[in-house]
Amino acid sequence: MKRSLGPRPLAYTTPVWVIGTYDAGGRANVMTASWAGICCSKPPCVNVSLRRATYTYGCLTARRAFTVGVPSADQVREADFFGVASGREVDKVAAVGFTAVASDLVDAPYLAEMPLVLECRLLHALEIGLHTLFVGEIVDVKAEEAVLDATGVPDPDRVRPFVYLPEAQRYRGLGAELGRAFSVGRERRRGSR
Amino acid sequence: MKRSLGPRPLAYTTPVWVIGTYDAGGRANVMTASWAGICCSKPPCVNVSLRRATYTYGCLTARRAFTVGVPSADQVREADFFGVASGREVDKVAAVGFTAVASDLVDAPYLAEMPLVLECRLLHALEIGLHTLFVGEIVDVKAEEAVLDATGVPDPDRVRPFVYLPEAQRYRGLGAELGRAFSVGRERRRGSR
Repeated sequence: MKRSLGPRPLAYTTPVWVIGTYDAGGRANVMTASWAGICCSKPPCVNVSLRRATYTYGCLTARRAFTVGVPSADQVREADFFGVASGREVDKVAAVGFTAVASDLVDAPYLAEMPLVLECRLLHALEIGLHTLFVGEIVDVKAEEAVLDATGVPDPDRVRPFVYLPEAQRYRGLGAELGRAFSVGRERRRGSR
Repeated sequence: MKRSLGPRPLAYTTPVWVIGTYDAGGRANVMTASWAGICCSKPPCVNVSLRRATYTYGCLTARRAFTVGVPSADQVREADFFGVASGREVDKVAAVGFTAVASDLVDAPYLAEMPLVLECRLLHALEIGLHTLFVGEIVDVKAEEAVLDATGVPDPDRVRPFVYLPEAQRYRGLGAELGRAFSVGRERRRGSR
């Protein structure tokens, strides 16, 4: 039996991404966002939603570029800090002792410490309500050598990404493997024919 | 040191959501999507990207409504099947023995078996490239009584959502708790002042 909980932004899971931009003074600014995801395979694109009140909103729209950093589980404190502090009040990158690196492809910085980074140029901005959804084309993905497997692909157990659970307001790491995608369901498919 | 991997739709993590729609004949159709997420808090909205070639694309645009089902870890085979089979060829709901329930709020069905369900009406469609990004307003969230905690909020450890890892093509469950959001980073914030 299902119970109605009313309209609310509640679904599992949401990612934890660190959005990198330059402010008007050219200082690197970062902000953590979870209303975000991959939204197109060709061209490869991500979407990130921001409130107009955030410092990042103005930075991103002015330079029409941003980066996405995927933090590792051992960076949960820094990622959370990037979500609660404002770039208007504090230099968040300096505050945690991280290093901003200028992208050579887009007008935005990324953090050297992030194991996986996406460099994005702004393609679309869609005003929805409290949040504006930004679509960025991924012009490059960069990964730390240390997180790559023997075939040169990022190993999730080395990147160690984590998720944010809305309302529960908890960060959780990756758990047990449940199966290979486009594979574990095929038996059922054959069985149905 | 970072290595360039080129432009590709690779980031962690992405959700696993079962999108419910009615086809032209009024039959319930489901499809699994991971290019999706929450994209606005007010009004509460989700975004889901679909290729035009999918059966769901036509269903969703015709009825301007859809549901999001968050499957549980013990439904990984069914969820994967919903992603590899096409509603043009098979009645996916019947094939796995699940039950479609008509939403009383939007013109779309959801699966009784999903622990958490969002009922959405289409607000925006943004053509990006291979994928079109659909924004749906969440008009209600429904949860199985059994997954609610004592305060009436869904308990992530009862819902047991899982994530999809692009390129690795693996499904993973929820892992260890890493901290409370808007909290674990505050010490660092105070320390920076």
